[in-house]
Amino acid sequence: MSWLPTLMTATPEEGFELAIKLSRMAVKKTQPDDAARTRMRPEYAENADSLTMASHVVAANFQTVAQANNYWR
Amino acid sequence: MSWLPTLMTATPEEGFELAIKLSRMAVKKTQPDDAARTRMRPEYAENADSLTMASHVVAANFQTVAQANNYWR
Amino acid sequence: MSWLPTLMTATPEEGFELAIKLSRMAVKKTQPDDAARTRMRPEYAENADSLTMASHVVAANFQTVAQANNYWR
Amino acid sequence: MSWLPTLMTATPEEGFELAIKLSRMAVKKTQPDDAARTRMRPEYAENADSLTMASHVVAANFQTVAQANNYWR
Amino acid sequence: MSWLPTLMTATPEEGFELAIKLSRMAVKKTQPDDAARTRMRPEYAENADSLTMASHVVAANFQTVAQANNYWR
Amino acid sequence: MSWLPTLMTATPEEGFELAIKLSRMAVKKTQPDDAARTRMRPEYAENADSLTMASHVVAANFQTVAQANNYWR
Repeated sequence: MSWLPTLMTATPEEGFELAIKLSRMAVKKTQPDDAARTRMRPEYAENADSLTMASHVVAANFQTVAQANNYWR
Repeated sequence: MSWLPTLMTATPEEGFELAIKLSRMAVKKTQPDDAARTRMRPEYAENADSLTMASHVVAANFQTVAQANNYWR
Repeated sequence: MSWLPTLMTATPEEGFELAIKLSRMAVKKTQPDDAARTRMRPEYAENADSLTMASHVVAANFQTVAQANNYWR
Repeated sequence: MSWLPTLMTATPEEGFELAIKLSRMAVKKTQPDDAARTRMRPEYAENADSLTMASHVVAANFQTVAQANNYWR
Repeated sequence: MSWLPTLMTATPEEGFELAIKLSRMAVKKTQPDDAARTRMRPEYAENADSLTMASHVVAANFQTVAQANNYWR
Repeated sequence: MSWLPTLMTATPEEGFELAIKLSRMAVKKTQPDDAARTRMRPEYAENADSLTMASHVVAANFQTVAQANNYWR
């Protein structure tokens, strides 16, 4: 089964979760080694700028997901 | 209750507040430990580039919220 | 009175000023202490990359404001 | 044959793969030397911020691909 | 007279020039001191990443200008 | 003759080439000295993050070019 069968979600909150998933999946496609990603986590999750950068990626993906869902209007 | 029931807001100012909320929620989803986020705050809030980066994320989310609200025209 | 009653402006130049205001307001919402922001200013305004980053945020907000105004066509 | 005959894909997942391909192709156009790119990989794939930056590029390209495909609605 | 009377340009090339102007004007609004900006120039213009960052800002502003002009279709 | 007579291209691949050209032209407009740009190239082309940043700029310009061409649908 596909990890991304659709961009449609029932609610904005689920859309936001999908944006996070897209952000993480792009990282995983570049670094498929689970152990490597886990190793990087502490340094990453304790650095404010790293977290802001991650939030920016989610924002970019949320633009896509929100538009796909016609903003759940 | 959902933290994001809708992207609609009554005014542009409330839309801007929602964009800030989206930006912070993405950080929280990556670093759910409240104490860790609090610990990072001083270093973050005293660094001009960190603040500019944060403002950029808000701008990206405000694009989404403003479009969802048809720019409150 | 709201600091952001509308995204509509009479001219492109006023729209650009509004984009700058949005960029600064997001900083202020993260660091509300006026003295702290003033303290950071010299380091910030003397660094080319910091200024470029600030210009990028204005560009993102100007996209929103320009679209809201239908590009003042 | 072109490496980019179309932006259309059958599914969102294939669209995401295309976004990754576009991101990598832009790197390749700037640094065409395969050996050089391979040399950089370890340092890159072990750095959290580098991976976040890469994910941001994919997000930008996915916006384009998703819109081209009318979000696979 | 306004420095930005309109976003309309006769050609794509003039639109690109306008995008550069918007990028520089945002810098000037943050650092209005001409001497300071001139002082920063050498360091800036000799650094590849600084130039790439500047190019990114132009790209963001060109998106706005191009859309305003309906892509000069 | 203009270096940018139109944003229209026959194919997506040519559109991607145009996005690269726009990205480089913005650099050239900021640093017009060919020798200086050539001097920076080795350091730039051997740094993964620099290449990722460059790819991001291409992605932003490709959004514009692709939209101008109605995604070559």
